[in-house]
Amino acid sequence: MWQVSLPTSASYSTALPVLGLVHGHKKPPLNLPCTARSSMCVSSSQDSEYPTTQYPSLNQSVAAIVFGDGSESRLYPLTKRRSKGAIPIAANYRLIDVVMSNCINSNITKIYALTQFNSTSLNSHLSRAYSGVGLGKDGFVEVIAAYQSPEEKDWFQGTADAVRRCLWVLEEYPVDEFLILPGHHLYNMNYQRLIKAHRSSNADITIAVSSTTIGNHDPGFGFLNINSENQVVEFKERPEREPVDFMAVDSSRKSEDGSTCDLGSMGIYVIKREVMTKLLTECFPKANDFTTEIIPGAISMGMKVRSYLFDGYWEDMNSIKSFYRANMECTKKETSGFNFYDRDSPVYTLPRYLPPTLVTGAHITDSIIGDGCILNSCRIKGSVIGMRTWIGDAAVVEDSMIMGSDVYQGDRRIKEINGMEIPIGIGKSSHIRKAIIDKNARIGKNVKIINKDNVQEGDREAFGYFISEGIVIVLRSAVIPDESII
Amino acid sequence: MWQVSLPTSASYSTALPVLGLVHGHKKPPLNLPCTARSSMCVSSSQDSEYPTTQYPSLNQSVAAIVFGDGSESRLYPLTKRRSKGAIPIAANYRLIDVVMSNCINSNITKIYALTQFNSTSLNSHLSRAYSGVGLGKDGFVEVIAAYQSPEEKDWFQGTADAVRRCLWVLEEYPVDEFLILPGHHLYNMNYQRLIKAHRSSNADITIAVSSTTIGNHDPGFGFLNINSENQVVEFKERPEREPVDFMAVDSSRKSEDGSTCDLGSMGIYVIKREVMTKLLTECFPKANDFTTEIIPGAISMGMKVRSYLFDGYWEDMNSIKSFYRANMECTKKETSGFNFYDRDSPVYTLPRYLPPTLVTGAHITDSIIGDGCILNSCRIKGSVIGMRTWIGDAAVVEDSMIMGSDVYQGDRRIKEINGMEIPIGIGKSSHIRKAIIDKNARIGKNVKIINKDNVQEGDREAFGYFISEGIVIVLRSAVIPDESII
Amino acid sequence: MWQVSLPTSASYSTALPVLGLVHGHKKPPLNLPCTARSSMCVSSSQDSEYPTTQYPSLNQSVAAIVFGDGSESRLYPLTKRRSKGAIPIAANYRLIDVVMSNCINSNITKIYALTQFNSTSLNSHLSRAYSGVGLGKDGFVEVIAAYQSPEEKDWFQGTADAVRRCLWVLEEYPVDEFLILPGHHLYNMNYQRLIKAHRSSNADITIAVSSTTIGNHDPGFGFLNINSENQVVEFKERPEREPVDFMAVDSSRKSEDGSTCDLGSMGIYVIKREVMTKLLTECFPKANDFTTEIIPGAISMGMKVRSYLFDGYWEDMNSIKSFYRANMECTKKETSGFNFYDRDSPVYTLPRYLPPTLVTGAHITDSIIGDGCILNSCRIKGSVIGMRTWIGDAAVVEDSMIMGSDVYQGDRRIKEINGMEIPIGIGKSSHIRKAIIDKNARIGKNVKIINKDNVQEGDREAFGYFISEGIVIVLRSAVIPDESII
Amino acid sequence: MWQVSLPTSASYSTALPVLGLVHGHKKPPLNLPCTARSSMCVSSSQDSEYPTTQYPSLNQSVAAIVFGDGSESRLYPLTKRRSKGAIPIAANYRLIDVVMSNCINSNITKIYALTQFNSTSLNSHLSRAYSGVGLGKDGFVEVIAAYQSPEEKDWFQGTADAVRRCLWVLEEYPVDEFLILPGHHLYNMNYQRLIKAHRSSNADITIAVSSTTIGNHDPGFGFLNINSENQVVEFKERPEREPVDFMAVDSSRKSEDGSTCDLGSMGIYVIKREVMTKLLTECFPKANDFTTEIIPGAISMGMKVRSYLFDGYWEDMNSIKSFYRANMECTKKETSGFNFYDRDSPVYTLPRYLPPTLVTGAHITDSIIGDGCILNSCRIKGSVIGMRTWIGDAAVVEDSMIMGSDVYQGDRRIKEINGMEIPIGIGKSSHIRKAIIDKNARIGKNVKIINKDNVQEGDREAFGYFISEGIVIVLRSAVIPDESII
Repeated sequence: MWQVSLPTSASYSTALPVLGLVHGHKKPPLNLPCTARSSMCVSSSQDSEYPTTQYPSLNQSVAAIVFGDGSESRLYPLTKRRSKGAIPIAANYRLIDVVMSNCINSNITKIYALTQFNSTSLNSHLSRAYSGVGLGKDGFVEVIAAYQSPEEKDWFQGTADAVRRCLWVLEEYPVDEFLILPGHHLYNMNYQRLIKAHRSSNADITIAVSSTTIGNHDPGFGFLNINSENQVVEFKERPEREPVDFMAVDSSRKSEDGSTCDLGSMGIYVIKREVMTKLLTECFPKANDFTTEIIPGAISMGMKVRSYLFDGYWEDMNSIKSFYRANMECTKKETSGFNFYDRDSPVYTLPRYLPPTLVTGAHITDSIIGDGCILNSCRIKGSVIGMRTWIGDAAVVEDSMIMGSDVYQGDRRIKEINGMEIPIGIGKSSHIRKAIIDKNARIGKNVKIINKDNVQEGDREAFGYFISEGIVIVLRSAVIPDESII
Repeated sequence: MWQVSLPTSASYSTALPVLGLVHGHKKPPLNLPCTARSSMCVSSSQDSEYPTTQYPSLNQSVAAIVFGDGSESRLYPLTKRRSKGAIPIAANYRLIDVVMSNCINSNITKIYALTQFNSTSLNSHLSRAYSGVGLGKDGFVEVIAAYQSPEEKDWFQGTADAVRRCLWVLEEYPVDEFLILPGHHLYNMNYQRLIKAHRSSNADITIAVSSTTIGNHDPGFGFLNINSENQVVEFKERPEREPVDFMAVDSSRKSEDGSTCDLGSMGIYVIKREVMTKLLTECFPKANDFTTEIIPGAISMGMKVRSYLFDGYWEDMNSIKSFYRANMECTKKETSGFNFYDRDSPVYTLPRYLPPTLVTGAHITDSIIGDGCILNSCRIKGSVIGMRTWIGDAAVVEDSMIMGSDVYQGDRRIKEINGMEIPIGIGKSSHIRKAIIDKNARIGKNVKIINKDNVQEGDREAFGYFISEGIVIVLRSAVIPDESII
Repeated sequence: MWQVSLPTSASYSTALPVLGLVHGHKKPPLNLPCTARSSMCVSSSQDSEYPTTQYPSLNQSVAAIVFGDGSESRLYPLTKRRSKGAIPIAANYRLIDVVMSNCINSNITKIYALTQFNSTSLNSHLSRAYSGVGLGKDGFVEVIAAYQSPEEKDWFQGTADAVRRCLWVLEEYPVDEFLILPGHHLYNMNYQRLIKAHRSSNADITIAVSSTTIGNHDPGFGFLNINSENQVVEFKERPEREPVDFMAVDSSRKSEDGSTCDLGSMGIYVIKREVMTKLLTECFPKANDFTTEIIPGAISMGMKVRSYLFDGYWEDMNSIKSFYRANMECTKKETSGFNFYDRDSPVYTLPRYLPPTLVTGAHITDSIIGDGCILNSCRIKGSVIGMRTWIGDAAVVEDSMIMGSDVYQGDRRIKEINGMEIPIGIGKSSHIRKAIIDKNARIGKNVKIINKDNVQEGDREAFGYFISEGIVIVLRSAVIPDESII
Repeated sequence: MWQVSLPTSASYSTALPVLGLVHGHKKPPLNLPCTARSSMCVSSSQDSEYPTTQYPSLNQSVAAIVFGDGSESRLYPLTKRRSKGAIPIAANYRLIDVVMSNCINSNITKIYALTQFNSTSLNSHLSRAYSGVGLGKDGFVEVIAAYQSPEEKDWFQGTADAVRRCLWVLEEYPVDEFLILPGHHLYNMNYQRLIKAHRSSNADITIAVSSTTIGNHDPGFGFLNINSENQVVEFKERPEREPVDFMAVDSSRKSEDGSTCDLGSMGIYVIKREVMTKLLTECFPKANDFTTEIIPGAISMGMKVRSYLFDGYWEDMNSIKSFYRANMECTKKETSGFNFYDRDSPVYTLPRYLPPTLVTGAHITDSIIGDGCILNSCRIKGSVIGMRTWIGDAAVVEDSMIMGSDVYQGDRRIKEINGMEIPIGIGKSSHIRKAIIDKNARIGKNVKIINKDNVQEGDREAFGYFISEGIVIVLRSAVIPDESII
C-alpha cells in the first residue's frame, strides 16, 4: 500500500562508508579538486537524489534564505535594540516585511530567516506575522536564530558561515535552488523572473544587479564586469570606470566591445543547491561571507556566474539618510519609490485590529497616517505618522518620520520629569522638522526639534537624541522635556 | 491510570429507560407539572450531573449565546445583503464585534453565535475574526447556522426556538448558566458583574435593564416592574406610567412604595442551565421567542426573575437614525458614547494589514479615519470614513458615514456608465452631507448628496439610494453618476 | 501612484441602466434567447470583465463548490445528527476531508462549502480544520450555510438553487470556472487534469465519469452517452444497455460505431463561469438541481458538454453497505481502495494532540487504530478503531468499524443503567462482529453484537441500534447494557 | 475620551535625570547598599509603577521564564542536534511540552522561552505548537533566542545572565512575579498553588523542592536547609546528612528541632519582579547562574527565601538512564509516573493530522503507540513506539524506545548501503531490546540490538550508535545494515 520502491541513486551511495552514520543530506566525495571548473565542480548534480524534473512548479523547488539582520553601524541608533529588518517603515510596516512580501507575492513559500544580531523583536515579528499565513500547503517561514552546538561554540561569522552551519536544516526539503536575500532592502521584485533567467541560462549562480546602483551609491555588495554572453567575469569591491549609461546600453546591456562593467550587485543570489553545498563545504570551507569570499571565489574558479538586471526602484537602506529618504518617498502620491498600494503586490505584516484614527482637527498634506492615531488640531506635512501616534493641539510635524507607539498611553505610561507629565507622542505646540522620532518617545510641550544649529553629526544619546547626516533622531522611549529646543 | 470512578448522579439516572438510547444531555422527567412554582420547576438542579462548586472560575461556567442577526426592517437597506450584526460601524468594525469583544473582555470564552438571516457575511466574519483568537484553552466561538434536520424541516422560528433546537450542542459543555445576548447593540458591559449579581441573588433568570431606556425610546425588549426585593413581578410590552428618575432613585432603585416600574429590558438574560432546559422543553415547548413568551411565562410561573441595572451607554441600533447617531458619537473626542479607544476593553475584529492612509491634502475635523484610505485635497467634518475609502480632490464630506470599500480599486473595478468612469469612492468636487454611503458605492464627480428637497422617507432603490428619517443611504455597490444631485 | 486606468468593457456596460444600482457582478443582457445553442448562449464571455489570459496559474481561476451535506436516507442513522460529510471514516477523519484534501492537493484553494442539512458539526469541522490552513495567499474555505434573505424566505431547494442564491458571493473572485463537487465521495483525483481537459476541449461543461460505475452500482448522478468526439449527447437517469468493457475500449473510450454509452456520472462538473450564470439565471431560473435539471438542460440546448473519464478508485458512500465496505478497505495493507498513506496526497483533517495509543495486551490483525486509544487485553481483526476508543479486557472486535469517542471518559461520562456503570467504549469480554459502533456509544460487559438472528433490516432505535443490509449500527451515545445479545 | 490622568509614582520619577533617555522599565536608585537585608533590598517595591492590587487574577500577574535547553552532556547523543527540551518522549511529544502544558493548565499564559544551545528544532517546535494556541487574550509564548547586541557580543553565560540580558523584554508586561522553570523535567504541577504559597508567605523568593529528590538522586539544583518557619537558611551543593523521611515528617515538614534539611531543589523559583531586577542588576550584576550564584546570594543577604514542597512524581531527565526510565513508565497502565491521559491536565504539543496506525498483525503488550505507525506482523513489549514508526514482519521490540520518523518513507528516503536498501524503521526479523532508536534511523533486516556484550559505556558514533549506562542508543538518521549484531 505505502511501500514504493523507486530506483535510487546508486552511484552516489557507494561513496558512503560501509557502516556508520549517514547524514540526512548528500555529501559529495571529498577528493574532487576544488580548482576544477564549473562543469566538474557540480558534476555530482547528475546523481542528485532529487532530480529537478519531478517537481511540478517553480515555487516548490526554491527556498529563500533571508538575512534578517546585520549590525550596520550607519543605521545606529535605530538598531540599538533591534536588527535592521525590524526597523519600522512607512507607518505600518517593518523593513523585513518588504522582502517577505516579495517572496509571498512571487510564490516563494519556503522561507528561512537567519537572525543573530539584536534579533528578539525581529524573531517575534516574523513568528507572529508569518506563521501559517498564506504560504500554501508546503510553505513555511522558519526563523533560525544563531545557536551554539557541540561542534560550534561561536556565533555565525558571516552570511556564508551561517548558511553552512544551517545546511542540515536548509537541505531538509529537496529544493533545486537557494535564493539568498538581504532582509533590509526596499524594492518590489518578482523573483520568479530571476529564477527563470537563472534556469534558462543554466547558470550555477545568478546575481541580481540594479540599474540604480550605477553611479549613485555603493550599497556594499560589490561591482561586476560581464562579458558579451552576460557571464560575470570579474568582481570588484569598488567601481573603477565611469558608470555605464543604461539608457544607451538598451536591453542587451552590452558596451561597444561586447562587455559591460561595474554593475552594482544587489546582494541577491540564486545558487544551485549542489553548488551551494560544494562551495560551502568543499571549495571554501573557511569562507565566512558570500559577497567578499564565496561569490568572487566561484567566479575565479570559472563557475557559470550570470547577472540579472533589475531596473525597478531599489533602496538599500544602509544609512540614516537612505532610510529617511525612502520614508519620505512613501508620502508622495506620484512617486518613483516603493508602492505600498499595489493590489497585485500587497505588503504583508503583523495583522492588527486597532481603532480608526481619530482626528480632532488636522491639516494634512502629502503624508501617510498609520492605524489608530489620535491627531488633535495640528498640521502635518510630508510626514510618515506611525501607528498609535498621538499629536497634541497646535503641533506641527514637517518632513519627519514618527514611528508611533506600541501601546495606547494611559496612566501607567505617563512619565513625570521634574514635575512635568509627558505622555507618549508629540506634545502641544511642539514643532518637529526633518526628524525621525523612534517608537514610544515622549516629546513634551513647546518643544522644537528643528536642528536649529544645523548640526550634521552629533551623539546626544544621554539626552535622548542623535544627529546623523543632519537628521535628528529621537531615541526609542526617550523623553524630551517641555520647552526643549534641539 | 486513566480510569477514574467518581460517584454518579444515581437519582437522575434511574429515571432513564432501562434499555435504549441515552442522549448526551440530561432530560428531566416529563411528568413534572409545568405550572409549578420556581422551586419545583428547577428542583432537578440538585441532582445535576455537574455541580456548580467544582468549577474553579466564573468564566468556565457560562456560555454566551449571541443572536447574530435579525430581519429588522427599520435598518433596511443596510440589511439588504447582510444581517444586522454584519453592518460596518466606526470605520473599522462590524456591529457584532462589540458584543463579541464584551464577551472576550469579560472572560466569557464559550460563545455560540446563532445565525439565520442573511448570514453569509456574518458567518464569514465571525469565523475569520474569532477562530482561535485569544479565547484561552477551553474557549471557542462556534457559529451555528440555521439547519434542517430529520425532525425539523423548518427555519428557526425565533430566539427561543433556535436555542431549543440547538440545545443538544449548547449542552455539550457543563456550564452553569447561559448568557443570552442580542448581537447588534453598542455598549460596554462587564458580564462578570451581571453573572455575579445573578448568582448572589440565586435567581433563575436575571434580566439586564438599561437606565437609558427610561423615557428615551423603546428598544422592543419590553418593560419590567420590580418589587422591593428587586424581583421582577410584571412584564409589559409598553411602559404605562411616567419613567422613574434614576438619579433620584439612587442605587437601591426603589420608588416610594418600594417598587420600581417600567424598567426597559436590554434583551440580555442570564438563565440557569436547568431552568433553560426546563422552560424550553417542558414548560413552553411551543414558545418561539424569549422576550414575548419565555420570559413573561417564567415570571407568571413564579420563577425567581431578577433585574440587573446597567447604567452605562447603550444604543440599540434598531433604526437608521440610531445607527447614524451612534456613528456620529464615535467621531467626538469627548463623548458620552461608546469608547473604541479604551485599552482595558479593546474591540476585536478581523485583523488586517492594510497600507497606511495616504493624505494628499485634507482638512479634517472631528472625524475618524479607517485603515488604508486615500484622501486627496478634500474637507472632512464630523464623519466616519471607513476602510479603503477613496476621496477625490475638492470633495466635501460632512456629518456622514462612509463605509469604505472591500478592495482597492483598479482597472477591473472601474465601471463605465454612459461614458463616465466612476471608481469606488467619492468623486472630485462632490459634496456629501448627513448621509450613509454603503460599501463599494461609486459616487461620481460634482455629485451632491445633501437631501436638497429635505425628504424624510423615500425609496429610490432603483437609482441606488434610499432616504430614511431624513438620512440619505447610498446602497452597497451603487453608482451615482457625475453631476447627480440628491 | 495607485490610480490605474485600464480599458474597461464598454460593450457590456452600455447595457446597464443609465442610473441605478449596479451589482458587483456581471449581468448579461436579458434578451438573449435561451434556446440558443452553446456558441450564442455564452457569447457574452467575450466581453467578460475578467479575461482568462491575464490569470497566471490554473489554481487561481477555479473555485470549488462543495456540497457538504444531503439528507441521504440510506445512510440513516449515521446522518441522524450530522450531515453526510461529517460522518467519521477511517479512524481519524470525516468524510468531507477527502474532497477537501483533493482540492488542496490539486492546488484548488478557493473553496466554498454549501451546507444546510444537519450542518452544525460539519460547519464546525470545516471552520476549525481548514481556516487558514495551507491555502496560499489568496486561498480560503468559506462555509456558506443556508440562510434567509428579504427576497428568499425558503431553504435551498437543491444544488442548483443553492448555487443560484449564492451567486453574489461566488462571483466575488474573478474565476474562470466553477468546480462542482459532492462532499461525500471517497476517491483521489487531481482536479487540475480535469480542468486541463475541460479547457483544451473548450467545453462549456465537463462531467467526470467513473469507470467503476459501469455495471456496478448506480450512484444516482445519471448516465451519459457520448459521441465520437467525446461530446455528451444524451443524459439518462438509468443505464439501458450492457455496460461497456472499459479495458477493451482503451484510452480512446470509443465503441465500434464511434460512440460510448451509459457512462456513470460522478456528479462532478466543471462549468464555465459565464455558462453557470447563464444557466442558473436565464435559461433555467426555476431549476433546482444540477443532475436532473441543469445538466440535461444544457445538453438539450446544444451546449458543449464533454465527459472526462476517471479510472481510479471511487466509492460513492451512499448506503450503509458502501460506507462499511469503504472502511473495511482501509484496513488492508494491499488495497485497491483509498490510500490514506500517500505522501503526495495527504488527507487533511482537524489537527489533534492526543496522547499515544496505550496497549496493555492486544492481538491486532489487519486493522487501523486511531489516535489516543486505550486497548486492554483484547483481540482486534479487520477493523477500524476510531480516535479515543476504549476496549476492555478479553473483548473481541471483528470486521467492524468503531467510531471512537469525542472525549476521554471519566466520572461525568459514566452512565449508570439499572445499577450498571457503563463507560464509553467496548466493555470487558464483549464481542463485536460486522458492526458499526457510532461515536460515544457505551457497550457493556459480555455484550454480543453479532447479529445472531441474521436480520437484514431492522429499526431498534429505541434500544440503541439499527440493522441495515445485515450490518448492525449502534447509535451515537447509545447504551447497550451488560449481557445484551444483538 | 482616551486621555486618562491617573496619579503617577512621583517618588520614583524624581530619581531620574532631568533630561535624557528613560528606559521603558523602572530603574531603582543606584546608591542603595547591596549588602542590605531583604527589607531594604526590595524597599523600592513600594513605589512600584504597577501595584499588585490592581490586577484582577492570579494568572495575569505572573510570567513564566522557561529555559528550553542546556548542553547536558549526560544526554548525549540525544542532544547532538537538538536541545534537551526538543528530545522526543512518550511517542507523541517533546520534552518541553510537559512544562509548557503545566503552564497552560495552570493558567500561566505569559511564557518566555529562552534558548541558545542547538535551539533550531526547539524554536521551531515552540513557534508552531504554541503560537496563538489557547493562551487567552493577553497570553503569548515568546521564544527569545540568544542574540548579539551592540553592548553584549557574547552568548548568554548562564540562566541568570540570560534573564538579565532579556530584562528589557521581560519587563514589558507589569507582572508581579517571574516563575523560573527548567524546560526538561517531567512532572505535573499546578503552579498556581506554588504562587499562592509564595504570596501568602510574602516571600521574596520561593523555591520548589521535591520529595522525590530525597536520597534518590541529585538533580543538580542544590539542597536546602529550612528553619521552623519554613524559611531557607542554607543552600548546599550536596546533601550532608541522612535524608529526612518525609512520610514521618508529615505535612508540617519539620524535624525534631524544628528545622528540616537537605531538601532537593527542583530549580523552580518564584521571584518577585522587583527582587529579580534588584538581584540581577544591583546585588549580583556579574552572576551568571541562578542555582549556584543568585539564589545562594539572596539567602546570604537575608532575603525572605521560602521553600514549597512538591510531592508528586518528578523526573529530572538529566541522564540517558532517567530519560529511558521515564519513557518506560509511560507504557504502564497503572503507573506512579507521569499521566499523559489526565483529562484535567492535557499535554499539548504540535498538532498533527497523521493517518491512523495500520497494523497488519501485531502482538502488543504494555506499550504506547504514536500516531501514524505501520506495524507488520511483529511483537512489541513494554516499548514506546514513536510517530510514523515502521516495523517489519517478524521483528521484536522489547523494553525499548523508538522515536519514529519525521516523514513517511518512499523512494527518495531509501538509502542503499553496499547494495542493501534500508528504509527508515525496524527491518524484518530484527530484534531490539533495551534500546533507544533515535528519529529517522534505519535498522536493516535480521539486526540484533541487544547489547550482546553487555557493554555499559561505549562510543561507536562512527557506526551509528552509542552505549550509555547499558542502554544502546542508535543515532538520528543512522543506518544499521542487515545482519548487524550490537
